[in-house]
Amino acid sequence: MARVYNFSAGPSMLPEEVLKTAQAELLEYGSSGQSVLEMSHRSPVFDAIFQETKAAVRRVLNVPEEYEIGFFQGGATQQFAMVPLNFMTTGKADYLVTGNFSNLAAKEAAKFGDVAIAASSEDKNFTYIPSMKDVTVRPDASYVHICHNNTIFGTTFNEVPQVEGVPLIADMSSDIMSRPVDVSQYGCIYFGVQKNIAPAGMAIAIVRKDLLGHAADTVPTMMNYTTLLKKDSMYNTPNCWCIYMTGLVMKYLENTIGGLENMYKINAAKAKVLYDYLDGQDFFHNPVQKEYRSLMNVTFTSPSKEMDKLFCDEAAKNGFVNLKGHRLVGGMRASIYNAMPAKGVDELVAFMKEFVRVNG
Amino acid sequence: MARVYNFSAGPSMLPEEVLKTAQAELLEYGSSGQSVLEMSHRSPVFDAIFQETKAAVRRVLNVPEEYEIGFFQGGATQQFAMVPLNFMTTGKADYLVTGNFSNLAAKEAAKFGDVAIAASSEDKNFTYIPSMKDVTVRPDASYVHICHNNTIFGTTFNEVPQVEGVPLIADMSSDIMSRPVDVSQYGCIYFGVQKNIAPAGMAIAIVRKDLLGHAADTVPTMMNYTTLLKKDSMYNTPNCWCIYMTGLVMKYLENTIGGLENMYKINAAKAKVLYDYLDGQDFFHNPVQKEYRSLMNVTFTSPSKEMDKLFCDEAAKNGFVNLKGHRLVGGMRASIYNAMPAKGVDELVAFMKEFVRVNG
Repeated sequence: MARVYNFSAGPSMLPEEVLKTAQAELLEYGSSGQSVLEMSHRSPVFDAIFQETKAAVRRVLNVPEEYEIGFFQGGATQQFAMVPLNFMTTGKADYLVTGNFSNLAAKEAAKFGDVAIAASSEDKNFTYIPSMKDVTVRPDASYVHICHNNTIFGTTFNEVPQVEGVPLIADMSSDIMSRPVDVSQYGCIYFGVQKNIAPAGMAIAIVRKDLLGHAADTVPTMMNYTTLLKKDSMYNTPNCWCIYMTGLVMKYLENTIGGLENMYKINAAKAKVLYDYLDGQDFFHNPVQKEYRSLMNVTFTSPSKEMDKLFCDEAAKNGFVNLKGHRLVGGMRASIYNAMPAKGVDELVAFMKEFVRVNG
Repeated sequence: MARVYNFSAGPSMLPEEVLKTAQAELLEYGSSGQSVLEMSHRSPVFDAIFQETKAAVRRVLNVPEEYEIGFFQGGATQQFAMVPLNFMTTGKADYLVTGNFSNLAAKEAAKFGDVAIAASSEDKNFTYIPSMKDVTVRPDASYVHICHNNTIFGTTFNEVPQVEGVPLIADMSSDIMSRPVDVSQYGCIYFGVQKNIAPAGMAIAIVRKDLLGHAADTVPTMMNYTTLLKKDSMYNTPNCWCIYMTGLVMKYLENTIGGLENMYKINAAKAKVLYDYLDGQDFFHNPVQKEYRSLMNVTFTSPSKEMDKLFCDEAAKNGFVNLKGHRLVGGMRASIYNAMPAKGVDELVAFMKEFVRVNG
């Protein structure tokens, strides 16, 4: 069939031109006589791919020299453990809980030390981000942890909570590469790649060098940032294919899109189309406080659960797939990451209008 | 250029027909309108891929019902930590050290408990496997750990050390799927997939169910077999592409090869060509005791380091790549996994003969 518009929260769409390059190169990369899928990670041909991918991530995100960039397996969930195991040097860490994943991150960290909830928006089912004046960070916390964009609830931070002397650590899995980031505001940024970058199976962490070197000897080797970064992400065999795909997407961001400032404009325009439509009618409802709306994940409900189901079923028949909302929120969720074409959002809105005309 | 013969120890060659299928399906899997690279791991289309892959692994390896099959990230190295964190219930475990990776596995386990070396072949640089009568296992050891095939040293077990009442756990990264395995002899078998199965970025573990459920609460979630297996390897987003590729290779093993008995015959014949040549001349030398020779990794040296280098350089120019031996052994290593065609070994031997004629 024709290519569908895939609104999945992740893994999610990849740019079609990237997929076509991957397909063209699948049997043989360059004149290597091999597929990237078969390459020794220690071979010069793969090392060139790896180094160029790492350099491109640094360029695109404008990562300062005092930060290392590492490519790890296990997704962001594994980072939930690695962060406390490596950075909870005082035995204490403070977490802002603004959704499901920040909650899971806090629970995982509590296995390894004293975790305090610096603020939470659970009281209103995570439909907002707590005001920074309501955030309480302990002065002896090793770090403050946030999830920058809440995939399930469709919210995002619009200012970064800064606490002097306490490093800020952010899970940016669902909005990394969607807009410029001032990396220097963070001690560590990490993200699973499967939403806005590459196929599933890898997380990238950007770590300020002064935070390294403090993990206990009893930390599993594969969870020790210092060990893994000293070996330049090659302590053991990395996810080579995912590194290669990340490199292709970085090339796309640099050459086709023209960098993250442009990507942000495109994403803001796409999200505006959908939010403007939602705000201009009363069949569908978006529950999020407007100032915290995510540009990546747009949640909405129809008047009933039955209508939600009908909407998702009809949408799928029309080539708009994976619109079902997460069970914690219900209704629908349109994840409109970088690779979702503007046309996909325009056509979704047209479909929603027609659905309301028939069923409203 | 033409497709090279890639003798890499891993990642390594994949069957050309599998690569061609992956290429043909890369833009769209079936009539899904999506690439596998973009699929939600929770979508019905991917779930079908996952369940069929898992069922195929069970069929091909003849895994009994009392074993679970899990797909994890972090490679075998992550399993080195997961094994003791989940199975070292008495606080003690015994390791046979027969090469580099079994040594690393033992060192990792020693972070978490009392590890004893039940036997070692380090005295002769791991050119043999200790006789089972020289293996001493403590009766209160939680398990005995072996590495079944030693990738770097080119040795393999030819009998399985059985200790009544003590589960046997085996790293089979470099020979899994190369021959039939009697899974029922093991408490757990694990393997990185990047040598004989799929691209890098995943490990599979086959775990006897009665061993589950004993991990401490402080074990990182991503290292808890019980949690991950309860969620059928979907606690978080798995390496979907690698699962798909594993499925393609399982189909190849079942339909093109006709199962592991046939695969074993093919592998034994390939290895025989190379070992017979090595045994019939005295320019190259294989250091391994004959009864422990690996069918997967064949090590050999020439008369000098300079000659080794010349050999590898000339071989690469002729389309035989990644023949350089590991630094712990020196010389050369030809890894001839399932996907190395018999023709690749035949042509390598012809090249070796010509090399000796010119340089011998």
